[in-house]
Amino acid sequence: MQQLTIVKVGGKVVENPDLLEDFLKNYNLIAGYKILVHGGGRSATDLAEKLGIETVMKEGRRITDAEMLKVVTMVYAGLVNKNIVAQLQKMRIDAIGLTGADMNLIVSEKRPVKEIDYGFVGDVKRINASALMELLKQNYLPVIAPLTHDGNGNLLNTNADTIAGEIAKSLAFDWNVRLIYCFEKKGVLLDENNEESLISTLNFDLFQQYKAEGVIHGGMIPKLDNAFQVLSAGVREVIITQTSDLNTGKGTFLK
Amino acid sequence: MQQLTIVKVGGKVVENPDLLEDFLKNYNLIAGYKILVHGGGRSATDLAEKLGIETVMKEGRRITDAEMLKVVTMVYAGLVNKNIVAQLQKMRIDAIGLTGADMNLIVSEKRPVKEIDYGFVGDVKRINASALMELLKQNYLPVIAPLTHDGNGNLLNTNADTIAGEIAKSLAFDWNVRLIYCFEKKGVLLDENNEESLISTLNFDLFQQYKAEGVIHGGMIPKLDNAFQVLSAGVREVIITQTSDLNTGKGTFLK
Repeated sequence: MQQLTIVKVGGKVVENPDLLEDFLKNYNLIAGYKILVHGGGRSATDLAEKLGIETVMKEGRRITDAEMLKVVTMVYAGLVNKNIVAQLQKMRIDAIGLTGADMNLIVSEKRPVKEIDYGFVGDVKRINASALMELLKQNYLPVIAPLTHDGNGNLLNTNADTIAGEIAKSLAFDWNVRLIYCFEKKGVLLDENNEESLISTLNFDLFQQYKAEGVIHGGMIPKLDNAFQVLSAGVREVIITQTSDLNTGKGTFLK
Repeated sequence: MQQLTIVKVGGKVVENPDLLEDFLKNYNLIAGYKILVHGGGRSATDLAEKLGIETVMKEGRRITDAEMLKVVTMVYAGLVNKNIVAQLQKMRIDAIGLTGADMNLIVSEKRPVKEIDYGFVGDVKRINASALMELLKQNYLPVIAPLTHDGNGNLLNTNADTIAGEIAKSLAFDWNVRLIYCFEKKGVLLDENNEESLISTLNFDLFQQYKAEGVIHGGMIPKLDNAFQVLSAGVREVIITQTSDLNTGKGTFLK
């Protein structure tokens, strides 16, 4: 099977031209087929603030009303996505920037209102894996912004980690898929204040133990829950690392 | 040869959900292969104003400094482009929204500074016709935002009329290309205040005569100069009309 590496990179890296350039240089060294999924949270918050739109986060997720949906559409699909594409083209990599609406790539469902009304936030229902595979076979590098659509004309804000995981799962049957979550730290740490305490290998039982002991806590828990679910769905390798370690073989490898 | 219709639609239509819906319904009735090129000027001016960025127009063209480039990238490639794509997907038309940076579709050159410094404005150098043809043959509908790139990592603001014309020319050798400029009026008028004074057929000699007589003046002159140049480059038909006449056979046909 062909080797495919899906990298998810966060807002901090893609918003800073120098960090982005460093990241893309490392990224470029990865061999084989690739897909890039990006976030872009901080710029959206900045733009919203300038426009007098209040940013409300609940459980780490952005509440997306109609005005905020416009902001994230502009920032994620416009500013962030197209700047990454232009930088990759400069490196002679034939990138194509897409949202889930383009080519009907990612259909999602507006999250039902329970205790929290997240607004225009979508949960992924279906990935158009064949369209992605066609692009890869034509040697395009898909660069995916964290927006999906519901098939009824509505764009929906969707978590970039989730999109990366769902794309990985959808391609795991036909490709040898490796998913790399680029993170602000070296990987999952035993002590979050000590960068030398990297957990280099983590299996599901150890994760449960660390969770019970409180060693792993906070935002790392949903990230790892999602990552282990992706791994159990047939994705060969899931790695959590920092951008400068994209090619060093360092980071936390989930088993 | 296959029939290809390229439609350019302006900012006013794409910014208003009702006008956009009406336009897309008419657009959908056009048979054969299609490409859609859109503008989006007014929204960019609105967003710039909200952000305290001054809009400066010289000879009908937007002066695009670094901040304005961010604004047009957000509005054209993000808000406007992705909303059109989502609406087309709702109609079960498999649209793909692109700028000139995506797939290296349109390479341009930053306009040299002479009397006016237009800033980050690009003049088209090269269209990647083969990539567009591949998309069409795979039954995707390309939706093109008026942004190009210089191959050195810079996005550039580029006039949508020009992009539509250059795409038409680049495909005219392989396809039977019809280019339709959707306009706010019924077409080219003998008296701009009288919608009943439509010029239904216009050839180059008559255009020169009307220009000399002052019957055709102002912003219509560069539009028609460009249109006649496209026609002389092998595009089979160039039509200037209003969105509601997309399928009625009415408008100004250049010969």
